[in-house]
Amino acid sequence: MTDRNFSSDNVTPACDAVMAALNAANHGAVPSYGNDEWSVRLKALVGEIFEKPVSVFAVTTGTAANSLALSQLAPPFGAIYCYEAAHIVTDECGAPEFFTGGAKLIGLPAADGKIRPQQVEHAVASAIEMGVHHVKPAAISITQATEWGTVYDLSELAAIGAVARQRGLAVHMDGARFANAVAHLGCTPAEATWRRGVDVLSLGATKNGALCAEAVVFFDAARADAFERRVKRAGHLWSKQRFLSAQLLAYLEHGLWLKNAQHANTMATSLAVGLQGVAGARLLHPVEANEIFIALPETKVAALEAEQFKFYRWPVGDAGSGVSIRLVTSYSTTQDQVNDFLAAAAR
Amino acid sequence: MTDRNFSSDNVTPACDAVMAALNAANHGAVPSYGNDEWSVRLKALVGEIFEKPVSVFAVTTGTAANSLALSQLAPPFGAIYCYEAAHIVTDECGAPEFFTGGAKLIGLPAADGKIRPQQVEHAVASAIEMGVHHVKPAAISITQATEWGTVYDLSELAAIGAVARQRGLAVHMDGARFANAVAHLGCTPAEATWRRGVDVLSLGATKNGALCAEAVVFFDAARADAFERRVKRAGHLWSKQRFLSAQLLAYLEHGLWLKNAQHANTMATSLAVGLQGVAGARLLHPVEANEIFIALPETKVAALEAEQFKFYRWPVGDAGSGVSIRLVTSYSTTQDQVNDFLAAAAR
Amino acid sequence: MTDRNFSSDNVTPACDAVMAALNAANHGAVPSYGNDEWSVRLKALVGEIFEKPVSVFAVTTGTAANSLALSQLAPPFGAIYCYEAAHIVTDECGAPEFFTGGAKLIGLPAADGKIRPQQVEHAVASAIEMGVHHVKPAAISITQATEWGTVYDLSELAAIGAVARQRGLAVHMDGARFANAVAHLGCTPAEATWRRGVDVLSLGATKNGALCAEAVVFFDAARADAFERRVKRAGHLWSKQRFLSAQLLAYLEHGLWLKNAQHANTMATSLAVGLQGVAGARLLHPVEANEIFIALPETKVAALEAEQFKFYRWPVGDAGSGVSIRLVTSYSTTQDQVNDFLAAAAR
Amino acid sequence: MTDRNFSSDNVTPACDAVMAALNAANHGAVPSYGNDEWSVRLKALVGEIFEKPVSVFAVTTGTAANSLALSQLAPPFGAIYCYEAAHIVTDECGAPEFFTGGAKLIGLPAADGKIRPQQVEHAVASAIEMGVHHVKPAAISITQATEWGTVYDLSELAAIGAVARQRGLAVHMDGARFANAVAHLGCTPAEATWRRGVDVLSLGATKNGALCAEAVVFFDAARADAFERRVKRAGHLWSKQRFLSAQLLAYLEHGLWLKNAQHANTMATSLAVGLQGVAGARLLHPVEANEIFIALPETKVAALEAEQFKFYRWPVGDAGSGVSIRLVTSYSTTQDQVNDFLAAAAR
Repeated sequence: MTDRNFSSDNVTPACDAVMAALNAANHGAVPSYGNDEWSVRLKALVGEIFEKPVSVFAVTTGTAANSLALSQLAPPFGAIYCYEAAHIVTDECGAPEFFTGGAKLIGLPAADGKIRPQQVEHAVASAIEMGVHHVKPAAISITQATEWGTVYDLSELAAIGAVARQRGLAVHMDGARFANAVAHLGCTPAEATWRRGVDVLSLGATKNGALCAEAVVFFDAARADAFERRVKRAGHLWSKQRFLSAQLLAYLEHGLWLKNAQHANTMATSLAVGLQGVAGARLLHPVEANEIFIALPETKVAALEAEQFKFYRWPVGDAGSGVSIRLVTSYSTTQDQVNDFLAAAAR
Repeated sequence: MTDRNFSSDNVTPACDAVMAALNAANHGAVPSYGNDEWSVRLKALVGEIFEKPVSVFAVTTGTAANSLALSQLAPPFGAIYCYEAAHIVTDECGAPEFFTGGAKLIGLPAADGKIRPQQVEHAVASAIEMGVHHVKPAAISITQATEWGTVYDLSELAAIGAVARQRGLAVHMDGARFANAVAHLGCTPAEATWRRGVDVLSLGATKNGALCAEAVVFFDAARADAFERRVKRAGHLWSKQRFLSAQLLAYLEHGLWLKNAQHANTMATSLAVGLQGVAGARLLHPVEANEIFIALPETKVAALEAEQFKFYRWPVGDAGSGVSIRLVTSYSTTQDQVNDFLAAAAR
Repeated sequence: MTDRNFSSDNVTPACDAVMAALNAANHGAVPSYGNDEWSVRLKALVGEIFEKPVSVFAVTTGTAANSLALSQLAPPFGAIYCYEAAHIVTDECGAPEFFTGGAKLIGLPAADGKIRPQQVEHAVASAIEMGVHHVKPAAISITQATEWGTVYDLSELAAIGAVARQRGLAVHMDGARFANAVAHLGCTPAEATWRRGVDVLSLGATKNGALCAEAVVFFDAARADAFERRVKRAGHLWSKQRFLSAQLLAYLEHGLWLKNAQHANTMATSLAVGLQGVAGARLLHPVEANEIFIALPETKVAALEAEQFKFYRWPVGDAGSGVSIRLVTSYSTTQDQVNDFLAAAAR
Repeated sequence: MTDRNFSSDNVTPACDAVMAALNAANHGAVPSYGNDEWSVRLKALVGEIFEKPVSVFAVTTGTAANSLALSQLAPPFGAIYCYEAAHIVTDECGAPEFFTGGAKLIGLPAADGKIRPQQVEHAVASAIEMGVHHVKPAAISITQATEWGTVYDLSELAAIGAVARQRGLAVHMDGARFANAVAHLGCTPAEATWRRGVDVLSLGATKNGALCAEAVVFFDAARADAFERRVKRAGHLWSKQRFLSAQLLAYLEHGLWLKNAQHANTMATSLAVGLQGVAGARLLHPVEANEIFIALPETKVAALEAEQFKFYRWPVGDAGSGVSIRLVTSYSTTQDQVNDFLAAAAR
């Protein structure tokens, strides 16, 4: 039987190229703590991909990448503006507060997961008026692709960048699914980041083919000052760091990351298109990356569950008489798996 | 040419069994965040090895393991008694202070790296006298094997455990080289830990054959309450946690960890014995694990460096007219490598 | 001219009895750090007032009282449920996050400033479902009287207490204006707190007649374990602590605190009643303590400002075509001042 | 009977001028949170006294002043070099670690309480060699007058300032007894601080005549950026801040602070000179401020205690066959009290 797990892109194995790279790196004595050739090559490669000299720090998890990045951008008494249901707000067990020493995430409402510059502007103006009694405006954090599988387009990004510049805020992008967003946008990585005002990117790889690798990318080296000590004191500097860098190298070389993401996006679109033919189905968000939020009749959902399909019932709030569920595709999802799901949904 | 790197046991690759396990785990969709079969088996296996139900948390680095453990044992206003040059004091960039929210490491002098119960007793008595103005006695942390390659024997451990019980302190063991210590002691893991009063162990694997795996082991599950949230918010819970658990499983199964450690210890002894024949050589600490601290004439040290042998000049303070160096062996060190070094040293 | 400042109850001087007590305490050598007779008497007096043995810690500011209290109730990875615009959320510059080591304030909407048990219940259920990825439900914090000058009645308090008990949460009450609330409720302090499930009270005095004194009151001494060290390490233990305790003694003795609060409430009511006669005026919240939120025509507001009356324009959101302002009365507000304002408003 | 308490200068009342100022400030409605005329005048006055524009923040306790200052000078991953038994290390319950978010106090030995530049130089060099694994050199903190009642002379201060400049470290001075030090040195406050390289001063007043007032003085306003938010979020910004500023104004105006300190010093000298005539007495440190550390025969000490003299037995380590005690004088100590003690000691 085909694998029927659409619960998340983090239930996947590592892709072959990444695993091969890991095995290839496993020979001989190699300098520890990042003083190895893989780590050096990684920095160069990320610079090439983003068309700019960068500072790159490979870490193990997205939570670490996000929280470390934010701790560099906001003081303990700082405000970080973000979507009120962003991953950093709801799914990281307070990691940003821990790493920043207590900075405050100011959650802004956003039906499609995309915050608007006016919201930030309003919040900053209010903060300034309150003065010392309120946390100090410091940063914006956006998720790309968003928690709802939507993608900020280039003009939306530019607008966020503009308000940030105007108000002296740094911009962080949680790119756990950055590859999916870039594949959707069809632009260069540079166009989707620093050319639109992004200062620091959490570049995800784990969901898209790595075992355990993310990278914090600073587009201005000056912003990365002493960052390596934040990594170290959080226990996120590996002694055998080559094994982390090697994963990212394989992931980023030869465009593998975008190929994987494009595939996941295509599978998601295929699934979404097919599901829209099901009676009572209603897409809750545009499918722009590799996540589908869709309302289906309760009986349909229960039937799919009974057939061992794995996915989350995911309250979105406007599922009407149906049940809203989340389906996630990945680099390893096959058209057969999609067809299998669609066939079951049609039954 | 044989590899000539004796600088650390963390420059080694992962051992074959660990790498094979990683490859074997790389198939299919697997529940994320530790809800996988590897993680379940790991807990059972560690319980067997320690002859006791335990709580086990696999993490990526020794710094993470130590700091997470300490954050569970000491409040932000607590005192942690340890050797003044312990790894947690000097080599983790303030990680224990970060994770505990500011607890204080009270460093105690110890020529051989082993703190004595009387020192702890004295420090606690003084703290109590100072009352609210001083941090509250909370925990003891010992390193086994120590930073100087020595090993607490069972009676020394028992004495530390006794003062801890008497004063209501928890005992943490930094076991980055725990396997080497157990191999030296020739006792069971239980005898070397909770039977002597150790409450929490940082069980190292990376230096002894893993890629990036350590485990925090609580010998009393009650002490581990909510610990999983500390792990998560520090960014140390992998989404593909199976890859962490699989390493530790392979490492611990069939006694591989002790076999590896025994080999490393044997190589260290061989090296130490051979070096004592060198004119002007003087061992600075007993060689009880896989580290050698030895004073050699400057000309000898320079000659070895010129021949591309890698090791650290490591100030110990009593090297006399010579230079003190550190040599580290590992599971992957061969007798040929040792002989190669000894031959060079004899030249 | 009469004083025309209605901007806040914290612009007031200390009341005579408090100042007299301070002067009286200023003689001779007195043991430091709270080992003085005033501090001992304070503890006894608070116990009498609340009809229960209590642990009492006098501190300098409301922010300190709130944040210290919360740090005792919630772990760094904990969730604290409160009103989304509570003082602890918006006006303490992240102090709760600082003192707790990063706990998260989960803001709940509440038009009248009073959160409902169902909201807490819903949030806790959702948190539990998210498991380790979300902060751990730990405490509820309510403000009494609220930020909008309303007061939780006894059944509302009981309902909060009930959901807390059911879910294992601690209840904190920010009582910066607790005296005003009790004066309004006409009940005993015990009935308004621990008899309804409140575990810890920030008992305000500064706004109601002290110079700089608040108290953290634990109704269960076991909850206060080691709290004195939190106070000390936050720099909130005075060496000449008698001067802090003496203020609170004078404030609480002979019912002065309630007399002061009753007066402030009466003045607020008088002002509110009078203002309702002004054309275009509309009360935005019931006046149950010493704060008035009222919408007035812009021309009226501007005219009052032009006459040097001091108050804040305070956006409430439903001021219609007018301007919403906040007026605060205090123990020192006189009927003349109220009449003066009303006369001006009537012009 | 004369007061016989020589236990500390913090058992004293506030001096008359300070208390009068407090009473005088207690009238009318005054803008809160430091927007009052006292606070404005305070800033100007401190600038005059130090012959330089300064940033001044009045806070309640010395622990708050020190910890807030250090949190501005050292990042969470920073090293602060200080005397190993400095007040900030042993007597503030980990406050510096709390406020800095976990920076490490690197304690240096110093028989007379004065650290030497060579010690700092050595520690910094070692830290740099350890790189990312060790905390980052950030600041030096010295206590003036020291914990042993000695005083850094101007050349010693200059030498500390020089190594700080060379190594890019900030210099903090814990001046809980700064007035006593300046009185001893006979120089201007400027000469004893920024002219010798001090960047931030904790200027004590409580021990020398205030109720509860200290000031953090930045000699370079740029260093104080956003400091007001650190004060606020620590709960150290008073709503009725005038009462804090008024104390400091009275304390600093008309040279009262130096007059008070000079008197305390004179009393200490008188006591020390007299005690040296007692058989078996031996001064353990030069008496340069208002503290005396002296070894006396056990029978003598017990006899003084029996006569209700209050002082601490204070282990110094070299009391020989006697007992070491600490005696502290203050602005309120009288010659009669000194004579009373000396007479008893002579009996």
